[in-house]
Amino acid sequence: MNLLKPIDLNKILGLKVQEEVEENKTLKDIEEMIKKSEKIIIFTHESPDGDAIGSTLSVYHALKEIGKDPIMYIPEYSRLFDFLPGTGEIKKELKDELYDLAISLDCSDLKRLEGKEYFENAANTIAVDHHENNNMFADLNYVNSAAPACAEVLISMFLYLGINITKEIGTCLLTGIITDTGGFQYQGVTPETFEFAAELLRKGIDIPNISSKVLQTRTKANFELSRKVTERMEFLENGQIAFSYINIKDEEEANAEPGDHEGLVNIGRSIEGVEVSIFIREKEENAYKVSMRSVNKVNVSDICYLFGGGGHVRAAGCLIKGNVEQVKNKIIKETKKAL
Amino acid sequence: MNLLKPIDLNKILGLKVQEEVEENKTLKDIEEMIKKSEKIIIFTHESPDGDAIGSTLSVYHALKEIGKDPIMYIPEYSRLFDFLPGTGEIKKELKDELYDLAISLDCSDLKRLEGKEYFENAANTIAVDHHENNNMFADLNYVNSAAPACAEVLISMFLYLGINITKEIGTCLLTGIITDTGGFQYQGVTPETFEFAAELLRKGIDIPNISSKVLQTRTKANFELSRKVTERMEFLENGQIAFSYINIKDEEEANAEPGDHEGLVNIGRSIEGVEVSIFIREKEENAYKVSMRSVNKVNVSDICYLFGGGGHVRAAGCLIKGNVEQVKNKIIKETKKAL
Repeated sequence: MNLLKPIDLNKILGLKVQEEVEENKTLKDIEEMIKKSEKIIIFTHESPDGDAIGSTLSVYHALKEIGKDPIMYIPEYSRLFDFLPGTGEIKKELKDELYDLAISLDCSDLKRLEGKEYFENAANTIAVDHHENNNMFADLNYVNSAAPACAEVLISMFLYLGINITKEIGTCLLTGIITDTGGFQYQGVTPETFEFAAELLRKGIDIPNISSKVLQTRTKANFELSRKVTERMEFLENGQIAFSYINIKDEEEANAEPGDHEGLVNIGRSIEGVEVSIFIREKEENAYKVSMRSVNKVNVSDICYLFGGGGHVRAAGCLIKGNVEQVKNKIIKETKKAL
Repeated sequence: MNLLKPIDLNKILGLKVQEEVEENKTLKDIEEMIKKSEKIIIFTHESPDGDAIGSTLSVYHALKEIGKDPIMYIPEYSRLFDFLPGTGEIKKELKDELYDLAISLDCSDLKRLEGKEYFENAANTIAVDHHENNNMFADLNYVNSAAPACAEVLISMFLYLGINITKEIGTCLLTGIITDTGGFQYQGVTPETFEFAAELLRKGIDIPNISSKVLQTRTKANFELSRKVTERMEFLENGQIAFSYINIKDEEEANAEPGDHEGLVNIGRSIEGVEVSIFIREKEENAYKVSMRSVNKVNVSDICYLFGGGGHVRAAGCLIKGNVEQVKNKIIKETKKAL
């Protein structure tokens, strides 16, 4: 079981946070709802990243710690996450059943939830999230948009529930944090993030190994796709916009699996002078998934919102119909206005 | 001056470390040597990275805090570091003068020190470093090979000297740590590294901004060179070795400046299945600078040592004479043996 000695979460989170957490009415209701539920299922958003998968697994292990036997449902995810404890228990298909309690993690909108039909049919629902545009779709919504990752919101919840942070839980939470902060690097990272990391490293959790698996390892297919993205990279508006794309054909040629396109948008973002990086990926015939990243100024969430998408200020996405040129022209036109 | 409130380094480093530091004879001698010296000059290794530059600047600001007026000498470095406080004071040329005290930072061997002739002529010398193969070339050598960065060794030294960590000093130290840990990610990162980061973030030092500048920003020329490296990437030994190269001509075509080749070796290192990434760069006619990175097993320092180079277990370098094919064959032959 690899149990750690109890971690002093109060020390990590500080007394003030602890008091806020203890007074939190939502957490009180969440605790009661979990306690009374037998059949519990955990969901997360489509195209799950490390925060989605890490949060799901951490809640799975946490509920096990308090005597529950939850189910996790993630139909597909990158096999780079297979190193995480508990992935063998993830269900890729569900039987047509009813659940006492459905928990949504890291998802701002029911539309993006993988398994939404089961979520909607559950007797009770909880959502834990950190997205600013979360539309509070569950019965109980514990959302903290100041947290850099859903996993960091879960730390407070586990503190409230009196759950001991085992090596399994810690590894999964750190995977979420490391993913969504780009390895403690993005705006939004908090002193508590670092203190939590220090405490878990001291207790023997191999943070460099998690970072290596989550951030520094990419599949051969991802590398082959990055060759295409790099080759096709264009700079517009005096180098302020970087644009590139991949088609379904490229993914087929690279034998790409789900998740193999992750991170390709960051290639453009890192180049000096680039304010907005746009990466589009053919999702189905005549429709491209647009991923946008900005460096300092542009609110890319606002731009994606115009096309029915959303996300964070510096990282957002949407789906636009058309061929490469059409989609490119539409999204570049709006981006130019925002520069 | 942007002074921070005094940071409780004792709290960060723990009482045990503090006692060890207080009893340290070398630090006592270093303190005396600094106190009695008037003309102080600070040096670092050739092809300086963020730890070299950050350490140099942090010692500059620290000595200013205790009333000294030191000189820094770094003839060339990437302009991506120009955001650091104090870079305007860096000397790129030196007059033929004698110094009371020369300090070497982040350098394992006098041969690699930029300005070694001035260092050798100084009345007294100090070296602070974290390389395992440091050959103790100075009069006083404060070397901790367990530290992930020279900047982390300097924290203990500043603690001993009673130096207040200002915003300037903290920013420069974090630049060193972030560079050499790849943003808190590589093996060697310590709980103290994270606690130091937490404390400085809480005091208002913008860690995401430093990470963005140091790790997530690359010059256009670096991107153009990475196009070449990506295009030419070869996989050998069933994908365990990744090999790529650039020539002087490539650097000329990309208008590359010093430092623009930094990080290119990491492109190969990150690909699934790769144990050793080898990147070679034409340094002069018929001679290539070899950079090696390993993921889990291979000691690349040992391999580079065979060719008169060295470094760390997972990151090392050497210079080999020959054309691309000749250098490739030599280094691959030794790498295969080590797999």
